[in-house]
Amino acid sequence: MLPFARVTVVGLGLIGSSIARAVRATMPTVRVTGYDADPATRLEADALGFLDDVADTPGAAVIDADLVLLCVPVGAMGEAAASIAEDLPTDAIVSDVGGCKVSVAAAIRAAVPDATLVPGHPVAGTEHSGPAAGFATLFQGRWCILTPDGDTDPAAVMRVSAFWERMGAQVEIMDAAHHDLVLAVTSHVPHLIAYSIVGTASDLEEVTRGEVIKYSAGGFRDFTRIAASDPTMWRDVFLNNRAAVLEILQRLQEDVTMLQRAIRWGDGDALFDLFTRTRAIRRSIIEQGQDDARADFGRAHP
Amino acid sequence: MLPFARVTVVGLGLIGSSIARAVRATMPTVRVTGYDADPATRLEADALGFLDDVADTPGAAVIDADLVLLCVPVGAMGEAAASIAEDLPTDAIVSDVGGCKVSVAAAIRAAVPDATLVPGHPVAGTEHSGPAAGFATLFQGRWCILTPDGDTDPAAVMRVSAFWERMGAQVEIMDAAHHDLVLAVTSHVPHLIAYSIVGTASDLEEVTRGEVIKYSAGGFRDFTRIAASDPTMWRDVFLNNRAAVLEILQRLQEDVTMLQRAIRWGDGDALFDLFTRTRAIRRSIIEQGQDDARADFGRAHP
Repeated sequence: MLPFARVTVVGLGLIGSSIARAVRATMPTVRVTGYDADPATRLEADALGFLDDVADTPGAAVIDADLVLLCVPVGAMGEAAASIAEDLPTDAIVSDVGGCKVSVAAAIRAAVPDATLVPGHPVAGTEHSGPAAGFATLFQGRWCILTPDGDTDPAAVMRVSAFWERMGAQVEIMDAAHHDLVLAVTSHVPHLIAYSIVGTASDLEEVTRGEVIKYSAGGFRDFTRIAASDPTMWRDVFLNNRAAVLEILQRLQEDVTMLQRAIRWGDGDALFDLFTRTRAIRRSIIEQGQDDARADFGRAHP
Repeated sequence: MLPFARVTVVGLGLIGSSIARAVRATMPTVRVTGYDADPATRLEADALGFLDDVADTPGAAVIDADLVLLCVPVGAMGEAAASIAEDLPTDAIVSDVGGCKVSVAAAIRAAVPDATLVPGHPVAGTEHSGPAAGFATLFQGRWCILTPDGDTDPAAVMRVSAFWERMGAQVEIMDAAHHDLVLAVTSHVPHLIAYSIVGTASDLEEVTRGEVIKYSAGGFRDFTRIAASDPTMWRDVFLNNRAAVLEILQRLQEDVTMLQRAIRWGDGDALFDLFTRTRAIRRSIIEQGQDDARADFGRAHP
């Protein structure tokens, strides 16, 4: 049995358009309507043809939906929820894909206080943005975390879980505050460090930008991928998950300082011990299907 | 015309074995002899069959070579050079593939003061180690930096350049100290940060190791690849390129602190500006053929 019959996606970027494509691939009888606040994005999505219908207003998009998925940057979630509030059917379930959950759930709840809300976060993506960047298999084998509060109807949570599982994802239920801490570690701080290291490298006086680019295969290029992610999305994540990001960043800074000291004092054993420990995590990630087992992420070596 | 007729590779790990394979693929009439201090590695390399000959001693390996390439961790370069000193033919050229050049060139020169030395560093690799990990196309389109000093015979530098170009690499001549600073930016500090962030994530009390692994697709997994690189090799790099690594690390720490402050004070514009700037570097790296243009490094999305 299909968990929903009429799904509306608000926000047609990488994630929203991937959901629409995944629904078409895995639940072809489900009708998917899309809306985006940017008229150019609506036109582009319409031309790409992954939606059954593109609505011209948020109200028209949700009027007969049984699931509404908000797929906008986390700083725009409250506004997106407010824009559908008036036309949202009473029995529709509202969910979202925001990368931080405490602030997003609060913003959506404030805008649609009577709706059944099941906040969610599919831990998947690429460095590309926009409706053309999406693809139907983005969620295959990835985890989708749902953070309903204690009052949420368990049947609604089950239906949203089933929806993600149909698209190939694995579902985990988690407390919203814990989600925000876990993602600060596995996603937010890594992105911040990647952005930072790319910024540092491009600002040096002694090393030219041309040199940084030419010799990037030494490791630097790995960081440039996530540092090419959508700036609006990531600005909003940091502003909306401040406490957890700052806590993890502080821990990281302490650990980097310890390594800095080990290098300065020539403590090779401390370096060797850490470098040996970190290999095990990579192995586990590959064993659990969360990364490509091929060398170099499967990059082409012509 | 072939730049060399008899090449000896000392150290049969990822880089040494890739060179041997690349020579066979691109200069099939050149005879390649290999040696590794570890008898098990010699046996493994012999069984893999990418060498014309596996020698039992370093002396026997170099006795009729016209190019000797030292492909051992940078901390072992001096010892490797000393082990061939007695049997090195007078007219043989000695080169190496070490990731830092000032200390390595000094160590090799001290061991073989009369040899013609052309220090080198192919900026290429994967996270895998050992003779089975090598492949013939590793250097295709990558840069190899040579750091001869002012006294080196230009003809020797030309021959070593031609050798790398035959294997598909592009060659750049650079001052050794400048090399060490450039690589601190594009390779050494990125590796240190990757090791550090993986270490920090695995040491947290509030977030389990299982959670870190499950949700690693949020960005963290990108760091685990280079943090799975060979521990001995990388310990040696940091101990031998201390000054440049500490200088760049200090710059990075300042920039991270600035971002930390921007997050604490809610300065979204500062974040947005940086996140926009960093996209341009990724584009240049792809335009110049130094990374895979496909989304997500070309990872498989089944």
